[in-house]
Amino acid sequence: MPRRIALAYSGGLDTSAIIPWLKAPYGQDTEIIEFCGNVGQGDEELVGREDKAANSGAVDCRVAALRETFARDYVFPTLIGGPTYERRYLLGTSMARPILAKAHVEYAREVGADSLCHGCTGKGNDQVRFETTFAALAPDLEVIAPWRTWSMRSREELLQYLADRNIATTARATKIYSRDANLWHISHEGGAIEDPWAEPPADAWMTTTDPREAPSEHDDVTLTFERGRPVAVNHAPMAPHDLIEHLNAVAGPHGVGRVDIVENRVVGMKSRGLYETPGGTVIVEALLALEELCLDRDTMRLRETLALRFADLVYEGKWFCPVREAISAAAESIATKLEGDVVVRLYKGSATAIQRKRPHSLYAEDYSTFGEDEVYDQSHAEGFIRLFSLPSRIAAHNAAAAAQKANS
Amino acid sequence: MPRRIALAYSGGLDTSAIIPWLKAPYGQDTEIIEFCGNVGQGDEELVGREDKAANSGAVDCRVAALRETFARDYVFPTLIGGPTYERRYLLGTSMARPILAKAHVEYAREVGADSLCHGCTGKGNDQVRFETTFAALAPDLEVIAPWRTWSMRSREELLQYLADRNIATTARATKIYSRDANLWHISHEGGAIEDPWAEPPADAWMTTTDPREAPSEHDDVTLTFERGRPVAVNHAPMAPHDLIEHLNAVAGPHGVGRVDIVENRVVGMKSRGLYETPGGTVIVEALLALEELCLDRDTMRLRETLALRFADLVYEGKWFCPVREAISAAAESIATKLEGDVVVRLYKGSATAIQRKRPHSLYAEDYSTFGEDEVYDQSHAEGFIRLFSLPSRIAAHNAAAAAQKANS
Amino acid sequence: MPRRIALAYSGGLDTSAIIPWLKAPYGQDTEIIEFCGNVGQGDEELVGREDKAANSGAVDCRVAALRETFARDYVFPTLIGGPTYERRYLLGTSMARPILAKAHVEYAREVGADSLCHGCTGKGNDQVRFETTFAALAPDLEVIAPWRTWSMRSREELLQYLADRNIATTARATKIYSRDANLWHISHEGGAIEDPWAEPPADAWMTTTDPREAPSEHDDVTLTFERGRPVAVNHAPMAPHDLIEHLNAVAGPHGVGRVDIVENRVVGMKSRGLYETPGGTVIVEALLALEELCLDRDTMRLRETLALRFADLVYEGKWFCPVREAISAAAESIATKLEGDVVVRLYKGSATAIQRKRPHSLYAEDYSTFGEDEVYDQSHAEGFIRLFSLPSRIAAHNAAAAAQKANS
Amino acid sequence: MPRRIALAYSGGLDTSAIIPWLKAPYGQDTEIIEFCGNVGQGDEELVGREDKAANSGAVDCRVAALRETFARDYVFPTLIGGPTYERRYLLGTSMARPILAKAHVEYAREVGADSLCHGCTGKGNDQVRFETTFAALAPDLEVIAPWRTWSMRSREELLQYLADRNIATTARATKIYSRDANLWHISHEGGAIEDPWAEPPADAWMTTTDPREAPSEHDDVTLTFERGRPVAVNHAPMAPHDLIEHLNAVAGPHGVGRVDIVENRVVGMKSRGLYETPGGTVIVEALLALEELCLDRDTMRLRETLALRFADLVYEGKWFCPVREAISAAAESIATKLEGDVVVRLYKGSATAIQRKRPHSLYAEDYSTFGEDEVYDQSHAEGFIRLFSLPSRIAAHNAAAAAQKANS
Repeated sequence: MPRRIALAYSGGLDTSAIIPWLKAPYGQDTEIIEFCGNVGQGDEELVGREDKAANSGAVDCRVAALRETFARDYVFPTLIGGPTYERRYLLGTSMARPILAKAHVEYAREVGADSLCHGCTGKGNDQVRFETTFAALAPDLEVIAPWRTWSMRSREELLQYLADRNIATTARATKIYSRDANLWHISHEGGAIEDPWAEPPADAWMTTTDPREAPSEHDDVTLTFERGRPVAVNHAPMAPHDLIEHLNAVAGPHGVGRVDIVENRVVGMKSRGLYETPGGTVIVEALLALEELCLDRDTMRLRETLALRFADLVYEGKWFCPVREAISAAAESIATKLEGDVVVRLYKGSATAIQRKRPHSLYAEDYSTFGEDEVYDQSHAEGFIRLFSLPSRIAAHNAAAAAQKANS
Repeated sequence: MPRRIALAYSGGLDTSAIIPWLKAPYGQDTEIIEFCGNVGQGDEELVGREDKAANSGAVDCRVAALRETFARDYVFPTLIGGPTYERRYLLGTSMARPILAKAHVEYAREVGADSLCHGCTGKGNDQVRFETTFAALAPDLEVIAPWRTWSMRSREELLQYLADRNIATTARATKIYSRDANLWHISHEGGAIEDPWAEPPADAWMTTTDPREAPSEHDDVTLTFERGRPVAVNHAPMAPHDLIEHLNAVAGPHGVGRVDIVENRVVGMKSRGLYETPGGTVIVEALLALEELCLDRDTMRLRETLALRFADLVYEGKWFCPVREAISAAAESIATKLEGDVVVRLYKGSATAIQRKRPHSLYAEDYSTFGEDEVYDQSHAEGFIRLFSLPSRIAAHNAAAAAQKANS
Repeated sequence: MPRRIALAYSGGLDTSAIIPWLKAPYGQDTEIIEFCGNVGQGDEELVGREDKAANSGAVDCRVAALRETFARDYVFPTLIGGPTYERRYLLGTSMARPILAKAHVEYAREVGADSLCHGCTGKGNDQVRFETTFAALAPDLEVIAPWRTWSMRSREELLQYLADRNIATTARATKIYSRDANLWHISHEGGAIEDPWAEPPADAWMTTTDPREAPSEHDDVTLTFERGRPVAVNHAPMAPHDLIEHLNAVAGPHGVGRVDIVENRVVGMKSRGLYETPGGTVIVEALLALEELCLDRDTMRLRETLALRFADLVYEGKWFCPVREAISAAAESIATKLEGDVVVRLYKGSATAIQRKRPHSLYAEDYSTFGEDEVYDQSHAEGFIRLFSLPSRIAAHNAAAAAQKANS
Repeated sequence: MPRRIALAYSGGLDTSAIIPWLKAPYGQDTEIIEFCGNVGQGDEELVGREDKAANSGAVDCRVAALRETFARDYVFPTLIGGPTYERRYLLGTSMARPILAKAHVEYAREVGADSLCHGCTGKGNDQVRFETTFAALAPDLEVIAPWRTWSMRSREELLQYLADRNIATTARATKIYSRDANLWHISHEGGAIEDPWAEPPADAWMTTTDPREAPSEHDDVTLTFERGRPVAVNHAPMAPHDLIEHLNAVAGPHGVGRVDIVENRVVGMKSRGLYETPGGTVIVEALLALEELCLDRDTMRLRETLALRFADLVYEGKWFCPVREAISAAAESIATKLEGDVVVRLYKGSATAIQRKRPHSLYAEDYSTFGEDEVYDQSHAEGFIRLFSLPSRIAAHNAAAAAQKANS
């Protein structure tokens, strides 16, 4: 029986080369089926996908519609779990990997494929993320990662490979940056970006305006949250994916959501990346502001601690793991406290929460005024402080006693 | 022997009332000595301090010069330990409290005082911070906190109290905001700020320009770091306190360093505060960018975890505690890796690192390119991923075996 | 309307004095109602409780039956959340406080009481725990804590107080240790126990045999777990409270479950305590052994980290707080993985897991043998190690390059 | 120039096969030099080492004397950093790996070797530990790991390999357990141990007596600590390595220090191991007891949190990493508080601290008695509790207000 390989087809030059390359070792009757998931990456990768697949020699092709599920079941749970990796990166690529890998596996099962093939290089995070999901959901299927196997290392070599086989391609040798896009963000790396001593090149950015060219008038947007999720913009209810895309359109022109980071990859090296997450940046800022209002100190500390770990897990592709599920359970419990409205001001690259309210807030304006009230009695503070600082007082007494003894 | 009370004199209305109030219970021969520390709060509080002290009936007065020590021994250790409380607040007031309390105690010892008096209210953090340091350094001295003891609760009552005693004051009944300043920052709270649903009032801000009125041209500043501390601006070496004040002057006009936060106080309530930390914001942004370049992943995770705890400890006033010292020891160890240059762009309220370099970086541009190299062999990635995801694979196999058994 | 006070009646000398003492300030028509919860503390405190209440002048009395709820809804959730405070203490007293305080409040509501009174001293943890629950469930009810208010400080003074009022009591001046008991444990403190340089006094222990006098033959018990809870002993299913009491009877004679600790109280001081938790010690040992078998490394790390925090929260009485609920949500998620059997050997003071199994284990005997297998390919290890240690390799290369440069 | 390989020679069957095996690919003029470190593993591996090396065809051999350095610079720093992996394992093998790898590298440098070879299998932790140190200290040297390269998988195959080449060996096909020993511990794994449902086989244990056969009389030993290190036993000062070996001799006969664990290996699988650490168990128990006495609550929490991470790092072989050094810096800071005496009782498998004292203790017996004192005023407790529970009170008030509003 011929081999049947489900290939994650990104439409790039490398996937063009993968199909002929796969047939070399496995035989010309090897059947390639192509999988592609629509997570909001835009038309370029998706339009005409079926035709291209047929032309490439694939026996079948699937473009899975994943935008809504992606927003609801991956983006928003990450939002409340811990959306920020290494203080800056909003995990846009990371959280798309498990849903793509899961849909890839489901398609492979459906068509009876025996192998899963992806076009990730051997130096990046995505190979880890995809294959970790494959391990969790389809440990029985073989994984084929051409970039780790073949000897080609550059676009020039790929073009030569195709030319040698008379395979037509519209790809050119110069592709400046490596990119990944979905409805939450777009990433850029490679080329001139790699040098951290170089200012981010102006031609890299795609969905956000240079703050210096953004409007001189600010915009204020009001986000309404329920269970930690944004559910309305300026009081107009929106579905998760629509809300994100709407905010992208509002915030991008203000230059909001640019990130420039040198990050630690899973595979042990560092890389410099640029990210654009205009709508997501607005949402995260609003949620932080709401947490300040709604969470008591103990709960916020737990939230902060778990968020660090959660972001690492998502970054590493460990979505379908018990540890991720456990943190999500805690995050959902905390999220029940997160409801209210936040106004975020967009201006020249900044998104800043300037107003926040909650139906029934732990923050009670009255409690912190200098006037008297029933809940807080200032005379209680002395006792609090005496016990709060008791260990210091005892230690100081002991030290004094020791010094006295040493002198006598 | 008459009582001798060392009073922390902030120059506000309340300290005017404290002196006569103290003499009521303790007798007219009670000796008040006034202490004030110069941590860069500006002239208003300090100029003419000695004259005012004499007029107020104090028998002695001290203005301690603390700017340099404050910057070097409190601000910079906090910078490398964990400078951010609840994601936003750069701890400006918090880290000034231990140095002020320590100098206060030293002065009290010098002049033979038996009591320490401060003018903090019974609802805030500062009473906790001052008294926690007092407990650690002078558990034998009595602490007097008039605001927790007297029945006055408003400025009106204080003015009436002074009028009743024919004590002149230039203070007026309306003081809109409660403020605290030093070379690192200025804070604002109270009045219209208390309502979190109100936009920060424009008249609150003092040292930063409204971003919308900031220059339309950006400025780039280069910071050089050694041992995690900034030591030069645009390659000109500067002492810690000079460097901070220089950056305040550069960044303030760009509207950099405004923070609007609802924070959890030590005493269990929330309060909304506004902070301006122009120079500090530039330094923290630069340091984050440098950490990205210099710290491996494990070390950065430790840094992040400890920084959360460190910021809490500083916020709570636990500076002279073993736990703070232990985290500082770890932070100093990590800081030995933090050297290099960072360029920060100032523009319309934002401070953004755009370039960073390090003499000998863990980040090697070559290691992440798509070209070949000696350090990283892409074929290693397969083995890495197989073991990285092994628990998921085993779990999936086990689940499959269990399902099969259940079906048979 | 006369005051109506719901008093937590422990049956001790202090509660005898509280009733007359309460009537002094509030008037002789003050109505005292007595509350007592049966959490398995044994007959001494509970038998004849109603008669004693009537004799003491209480207008009503309630003994709430809480054993089953305590075991199911407080002990077992603590078991899976984090049962160990400061490495040794199994939280027996701590976790009984929220259920007692909650039932106390419910009874107070039912009978229309306006105040809650307890007999805890002003130096211990229990006042904090009770009143933290009162704050969460009944912030409107007044709390009366006689020990913090009256001037009496010793049993002698209490006896004199009763004698002065011709109130009969069978209590004597010498009560060596302060104790608290329930079905999970019994605690002992005070008296000769307070000196940490003194060996625990033999007469303190009550429910466990001195290991040196325990049987010279060991016993093995098999515990079966579902969702992290023990559900059967030696394959006989038991309800939670029965199971705990059964294991107490089995393990106590073997001297299992003695703890001698110097612990940090919530109020800032240390105290030395002795605890006996025979059955609980067996359960905790078995659960640890099962976790080793069932949890992957990431999940176990989360479990360990959260358990530290959870134990602190229970110790502090923060049961009815969002942070405790959030950790419990994570713990319940993890507990779904914890099923299987563990055999624990009881011998001369020790409880040691010696066998463990699980229906479908992540631990697969085959995977770790030196024979070949499909899941683990030894050749993968090289790649894993190369990437695992990549940061060290890069750092070493950089250091070498720096040294070379410095020498040239 | 012929290849020159520095081989870590454990004296086992595998190292016998490695020498001829190495010469196959690299040529007969390949020079093998043998390295062995004495970390207290006992005579069997070390006596006659030089002769065996000469017979095996090695051109040089080194037995490095490492006992003292191992105890002082690896064991004791681990003791104060975090000596317990996954709640039970005292890291005996783990902490010996970095010193052995370091000495191995130093010897290789000295003799001009170009490669480092070890005899670890491809399934265990030791390959990771050794090679992580090699990466940090000698990234330029090649690493050869025969077990990952050759096809032999069993002792039978190794014996056949030697027989085929007429190489004499005294090794037999049946070696029941895989062991590793040093002055801190001995480990056992493999064979019948692998089945977690089997009681530990009696023939595995080597240095500890079965508790059931231990003396019926207990022994009490007094340990004196300075800077967190034990420095004397029963008041007799001892060097670190002597002290450990002395305690092994004392505690082993009492059956102290047996551990039976299913642990998570670095490479992603679980394994069941048995460990014997008699002296170490006594030291760890004593240190825990001393920490209880000497560390305030905040410091102990930091200690507990860092200890979890430290143990992981040591287990993973990340000794020569910045993150390990940073935690050690914190641990040394904390250790300055750890001085005093602890008495540990040894009896039938248990080591239990029964007495502890400290020159000047944070624990003051007086502070916790029910009598009056100056440091702690019970009336302070009310204020403390009111503020401690303030978030709960506010939340309850808010919830009540919300309910009232909903009903109206």
